[in-house]
Amino acid sequence: MTTEAAFIAALRAIATAPAARGLADDAAVLDVGGSRLVLTMDAIVEGVHFLRDDPADSVAWKLVATNVSDLAAKGAVPRGCLLTYPLAADPDWDAVFLRGLEEAVRHFAIPLLGGDTVRQPEGSPRSFSLVALGEPEAGVAVPSRGGARSGDRLWLSGPVGDAGLGLAVLRGERHTAPEHRAVLAERYRRPSPRPMLGAALAPHVHAMMDVSDGVLIDAARLAAASEVAAVVELGQLPLSRAFVETVGDSLPERLFAAGAGDDYCLLFAAPPEADAMLERIAAWHRNSLYPVGRVMGGRGLSLLYQDDPVPLPGRLGFQH
Amino acid sequence: MTTEAAFIAALRAIATAPAARGLADDAAVLDVGGSRLVLTMDAIVEGVHFLRDDPADSVAWKLVATNVSDLAAKGAVPRGCLLTYPLAADPDWDAVFLRGLEEAVRHFAIPLLGGDTVRQPEGSPRSFSLVALGEPEAGVAVPSRGGARSGDRLWLSGPVGDAGLGLAVLRGERHTAPEHRAVLAERYRRPSPRPMLGAALAPHVHAMMDVSDGVLIDAARLAAASEVAAVVELGQLPLSRAFVETVGDSLPERLFAAGAGDDYCLLFAAPPEADAMLERIAAWHRNSLYPVGRVMGGRGLSLLYQDDPVPLPGRLGFQH
Repeated sequence: MTTEAAFIAALRAIATAPAARGLADDAAVLDVGGSRLVLTMDAIVEGVHFLRDDPADSVAWKLVATNVSDLAAKGAVPRGCLLTYPLAADPDWDAVFLRGLEEAVRHFAIPLLGGDTVRQPEGSPRSFSLVALGEPEAGVAVPSRGGARSGDRLWLSGPVGDAGLGLAVLRGERHTAPEHRAVLAERYRRPSPRPMLGAALAPHVHAMMDVSDGVLIDAARLAAASEVAAVVELGQLPLSRAFVETVGDSLPERLFAAGAGDDYCLLFAAPPEADAMLERIAAWHRNSLYPVGRVMGGRGLSLLYQDDPVPLPGRLGFQH
Repeated sequence: MTTEAAFIAALRAIATAPAARGLADDAAVLDVGGSRLVLTMDAIVEGVHFLRDDPADSVAWKLVATNVSDLAAKGAVPRGCLLTYPLAADPDWDAVFLRGLEEAVRHFAIPLLGGDTVRQPEGSPRSFSLVALGEPEAGVAVPSRGGARSGDRLWLSGPVGDAGLGLAVLRGERHTAPEHRAVLAERYRRPSPRPMLGAALAPHVHAMMDVSDGVLIDAARLAAASEVAAVVELGQLPLSRAFVETVGDSLPERLFAAGAGDDYCLLFAAPPEADAMLERIAAWHRNSLYPVGRVMGGRGLSLLYQDDPVPLPGRLGFQH
């Protein structure tokens, strides 16, 4: 067990309130008044979740977006956020960060409600923490990772692999045409979760989560939480034009896309009877939904590529 | 303007939702489902808010307690908290921290709901962030810093100066008898806010806040937010036996007590008509309340000592 896994296991023993959902979901769900509040707290750290030379406004965007992505996965409409900000002696960087923060809180309609600043020693990596609060629609159950049932289809709400490829391009490990470079870097730096789409999907799904660490590891987590088996058809994973024109579209690239993190789209399980409703939601929200696999009895994750079994890679995704 | 003041001013321009209270209060107040939720986020940093060799369990306690203190100041009963935890390669320290965390969330009845772990580079100072949520009593206005009126009395809910003196003792700057040392160190490391007392006081106060940076600076903030003048009678500040037996009880020591931080008691303004009710609340909660000054027309803070004016010290308190 890694230090982090051991630590989280110990935290779990403390977080016994039902609202904590066993620390096994993307967010906590607290009853307040006659409503419920979805609560999530994600931190991002320089060198782990963003690059040292990423523009400060995109760091702010990513901080807000990764938290909004958790709200989207729980079908919660953003209500507010609070920020812990490390002040280093770099007012120019701070000013650009604030521009990005303002842009992000407007874009996602998530008012900044408060927070704290802390002094940060010179030279230590920047680390930001954000808490986001959202409210699910009245009367709709807040989807967990754990409700998928045998017979469900697995769906994705957007292309995968772009952010991972964008990171590789920014690091100089991959090369591509300038217009693709811009698209892919943007996908790494400025994820675009869709909370209103998540809220529209919530009444129709059995399980939902956001894809933050890679489709494979997140599908494995959904299957484990639901005590079912998941099959992902790699050939059905949606890939962007920028991705395909940069690296191609054969099995190794699809495995790369499925194991790269930072997609921040939605992964959900829904029964086939929901197909027509999902189609209407996709049209209404101008956001394609992609069937990428299915849920079966049993345990674990298995992969197909054009109907042939594919061995699981040793590393399913990115764990930060 | 300091970097921090400039940064917070810029944040304020973004945090325009009424729930944010202009970032000028101890907490945000969000309407949720017919109720309200009080939200606060405080971070603590090694070398700033706690000492490097403070026991890890007391660091956890302090992290929870400083946030609960903000809830207490808003009359909010704790509902839950979320934690951002920096994982360094020190599982022993982590284990002791978790013991303290468990003890604190039980003591303050504030369930741990979630959070995030982040990798922390070796050797960088530890930094923790916590968000606490609380719910005020139905129908009771959430007191702000800004409601004090001319004619109000100023009150404190506990002794001041102990934590500041405890820090000085731990640093070896002051010396005292072993039994006092233990008391004072404990007051620095393990503040004991009283949220149920805060909730009982809330309906009867015009303004309330917690004393985190020192009575003088916090009274000046309350007066500024309320657009009134505050007078503090230094001779009335409650001092503990450990404090008095360590440093004495003359004007310089009282100024020290009034300018030291980390007291985490409540400072509030209430009309004289509330005196009898305050007495009953104090008896019920077994917690003395101390009248320490008054509110007048005008602006600013002034000090008295045994009825004589005392010039304001250059540094009113501790700003972290």
